[in-house]
Amino acid sequence: MLVGIEGAVNLGVIARTCANFNVRELYLVNPKASVEEAMRYSAHGKNVLLSSVVVNSLEKALEGVDLSAATSSIGYSEGDILRQAISLEDFVNNIAPRARKIAIIFGRESTGLTRGELLKADFLVTIPANPEYPVLNVSQAVAIFLWELWKKRGAKPKNIPPRASREDLEKVLGVVNEITSLIVSPSDKKERCNLVWKRILFRSVPSTQEARVLLYWAQRILRTLSKTS
Amino acid sequence: MLVGIEGAVNLGVIARTCANFNVRELYLVNPKASVEEAMRYSAHGKNVLLSSVVVNSLEKALEGVDLSAATSSIGYSEGDILRQAISLEDFVNNIAPRARKIAIIFGRESTGLTRGELLKADFLVTIPANPEYPVLNVSQAVAIFLWELWKKRGAKPKNIPPRASREDLEKVLGVVNEITSLIVSPSDKKERCNLVWKRILFRSVPSTQEARVLLYWAQRILRTLSKTS
Repeated sequence: MLVGIEGAVNLGVIARTCANFNVRELYLVNPKASVEEAMRYSAHGKNVLLSSVVVNSLEKALEGVDLSAATSSIGYSEGDILRQAISLEDFVNNIAPRARKIAIIFGRESTGLTRGELLKADFLVTIPANPEYPVLNVSQAVAIFLWELWKKRGAKPKNIPPRASREDLEKVLGVVNEITSLIVSPSDKKERCNLVWKRILFRSVPSTQEARVLLYWAQRILRTLSKTS
Repeated sequence: MLVGIEGAVNLGVIARTCANFNVRELYLVNPKASVEEAMRYSAHGKNVLLSSVVVNSLEKALEGVDLSAATSSIGYSEGDILRQAISLEDFVNNIAPRARKIAIIFGRESTGLTRGELLKADFLVTIPANPEYPVLNVSQAVAIFLWELWKKRGAKPKNIPPRASREDLEKVLGVVNEITSLIVSPSDKKERCNLVWKRILFRSVPSTQEARVLLYWAQRILRTLSKTS
């Protein structure tokens, strides 16, 4: 998913890269670049570009997705709960292989993703590049992400449990949020608690069964708290 | 080393990528692209471009190099001894770490490296991309190569938050276990809840700050539950 992509060359090259790594679904959220112009730079990625989906909000793009990773070169900012990224390797090795339908969200060339957009993603991932200049061109970042994901695909193992769906996890988060509102009063603290819960839960990519146990645990708390209040 | 690079955008973006992965030496063998025009696309890679060395033959570029790898999307052609590539992973894991000064040679956007040029390199490396369309844009190929090499080096990124210590996480789990014993009675269920918590927490690899928020959240629950029982 490209949010507000500005450069036609970047867009074209990204479509080509999708074809190189067998990625079929490209979402464009409010693109500024001309898709027609991008065609010229897409080589055999033309079909990816032709079948790309243009939407006017990130929410729409994220419909039906099980796991969404926002990307940024600003992966860490002390005290900022929105800038607590994991590294690309951690994402690719430990999270992506256990998830179902994944969206990777890239921001504008000029300003990246807004804080509101970061908030909508399940967590933040960064490419740990040169600390003195970690800001990659967006098409380069896409290439590196898709290459890393491509490497992990191959054969499907059978001794791995099925992963919880987004619906399963949102059910857990729903109960957690109810608990939070019973035990925490300042609204900014509430939000932080709920955000951290979301981050932790989606990054751990629970199995169906694990999600079920968590839901049970949270419901028990909620019931006990509700009885007494 | 870029042989006969044709596009100014590609050249500029490649210089930027060099800066992103701390590569200081860029050799241009008979470039067709305008270095001046490329400046516009190089962002903070300008210095790499300004100090790039333009030569008129691959031999000259290769002087003083310990190991040279040619790159091509045509990694294999039956019976063609010049097209017997190793994969990028094999190169990065097994060869590059043991070599001193390495040159990686990328060819023209239109026609790649000539057979004469392939012959001058020590061996051929390829990115094992989608078999149906493995031909990457040259700047994308450079990004993927440099990223893979960069990963092997071990520079410490600054854009990743500090991870919570085991002690931090065990503190969270301690409170969670206390909560569990207040709300769940059958001991096998208790154990399941606590185990899932442990799995989820360690898999999500929380940052210090995230662990702090979780601890706060759990302590609030515990306090509320304890007051009422």
